[in-house]
Amino acid sequence: MTVTESKQTANDLARKCAEEMLKNDPCSTALGMQLTDIGEGYAQMQMCIRKDMLNGHGITHGGLIFTLTDSCFACACNSRNQSTVAQSCVIDFIRPSYRDDVLTANAKETSLAGKNGIYDIVVTNQNGETIAHFRGKSRAIRGTIINN
Amino acid sequence: MTVTESKQTANDLARKCAEEMLKNDPCSTALGMQLTDIGEGYAQMQMCIRKDMLNGHGITHGGLIFTLTDSCFACACNSRNQSTVAQSCVIDFIRPSYRDDVLTANAKETSLAGKNGIYDIVVTNQNGETIAHFRGKSRAIRGTIINN
Amino acid sequence: MTVTESKQTANDLARKCAEEMLKNDPCSTALGMQLTDIGEGYAQMQMCIRKDMLNGHGITHGGLIFTLTDSCFACACNSRNQSTVAQSCVIDFIRPSYRDDVLTANAKETSLAGKNGIYDIVVTNQNGETIAHFRGKSRAIRGTIINN
Amino acid sequence: MTVTESKQTANDLARKCAEEMLKNDPCSTALGMQLTDIGEGYAQMQMCIRKDMLNGHGITHGGLIFTLTDSCFACACNSRNQSTVAQSCVIDFIRPSYRDDVLTANAKETSLAGKNGIYDIVVTNQNGETIAHFRGKSRAIRGTIINN
Repeated sequence: MTVTESKQTANDLARKCAEEMLKNDPCSTALGMQLTDIGEGYAQMQMCIRKDMLNGHGITHGGLIFTLTDSCFACACNSRNQSTVAQSCVIDFIRPSYRDDVLTANAKETSLAGKNGIYDIVVTNQNGETIAHFRGKSRAIRGTIINN
Repeated sequence: MTVTESKQTANDLARKCAEEMLKNDPCSTALGMQLTDIGEGYAQMQMCIRKDMLNGHGITHGGLIFTLTDSCFACACNSRNQSTVAQSCVIDFIRPSYRDDVLTANAKETSLAGKNGIYDIVVTNQNGETIAHFRGKSRAIRGTIINN
Repeated sequence: MTVTESKQTANDLARKCAEEMLKNDPCSTALGMQLTDIGEGYAQMQMCIRKDMLNGHGITHGGLIFTLTDSCFACACNSRNQSTVAQSCVIDFIRPSYRDDVLTANAKETSLAGKNGIYDIVVTNQNGETIAHFRGKSRAIRGTIINN
Repeated sequence: MTVTESKQTANDLARKCAEEMLKNDPCSTALGMQLTDIGEGYAQMQMCIRKDMLNGHGITHGGLIFTLTDSCFACACNSRNQSTVAQSCVIDFIRPSYRDDVLTANAKETSLAGKNGIYDIVVTNQNGETIAHFRGKSRAIRGTIINN
């Protein structure tokens, strides 16, 4: 198997894991999240901001921005078919977003050492403006996402 | 006005601010959150975990635990009728929660220095077990929640 | 053994562990740190700010405030004679401190679940003003501090 | 002025600011830190681990790793000659380092929006292994580093 083939195989596995997780995830489904890219150690997801995602200031509730990043983080850190959970997450809110905005979360793997991973997720709006920065720490546990 | 009366007045203002914020907050309403205690610099909120709050592992989506804490944080940090926003939040997940669990978030003010505040929120389940610890940093902006 | 005796025994063990760690800690010694209180799950340490602890703005270098909190955190999270290391720490700087200030760090255990702990440390100056808030996450590893 | 010249001018200013800050920084000097690269929004610093930088486990004290990153963070966030201070920092310790190790901190600007910045610093040892990840939040205040 060439390096390119090997990478393709890893990315195929990542996609299968993400699809398996998301099809059983009522929360991400209810919020209308879409997986728009996926591969070994990275993921991209989108969500359109609905009225029921707004807070008392008429802007997107920070919790739902976090929820988008957290789902994207889960896809990236489970991409090697090793069950992995979030331990600790930090989110910094940069600017507000509004109803009908389309938010895109991009997750990349910053560190993977033994069972511990660090993933950085950036959330942007449809104009490419940064909405939030998220850093999540993951820890591998027993089990796999799919049987392979 | 006695100290007790003064404290009562401050707590009444906190309640009015929280009620004003929550009645205009479609997200917290859609998630069924209830304000169960409120006062100057503190707040308590509850949320019952529904099926559409679960993730791909069959446990509560971390994003919705964060959303509960974030709403509770907002009530506590806006309790003096000074408009205040979240800047940065850290959440640590201690143990999972499940469908039909009733989660309670308790927010208290750890620091308030000028425009910057630090609030610590603990999330417990109906058995008193800790689900998550959250630390949020707030910053006061212009404006008030209610006219007084 | 009564509850009081049991607690005393736990606090004695905590003191022995902290003293063992600190006597072999050239860094904390070089910075002149003093252990001023210690018990099961908590610790207090002090440090006097010297000229070589200042940064380019003439105030205490944030790194040395962190170092004080980190040593205090280590004493608290190793207080049960179970070797424990820092995984992740967050520090928020509230106000500056200056040469000849005496800083006091107070560490308390906010959570201990299995191998994972959360410790909150507050740093104050000699006037009781808050200088920084620190939250550290620890993880138990193999081994003990002292043979008992 | 061409784009290349403009960038050179910005990097020259960054160097002047860092040199001004470090020459008045007794703490970074006492710890033997060296500025090894600097430019607009980034900085690189090195520190050799001495015996008085070790903790009770015989490894580098986490506080001094933080101190290295914090100095490097300060050089990067003050590189535009706008006085800027650290507000909040998160550090994740990946693997231990030892006496005589040479640690390199690389700071880059992840976000700059108004007065608020986010900087990510990675610390590696002489073998290129990652020792720590640091994320610092800065806030611009009044004043400049140098008169220009």
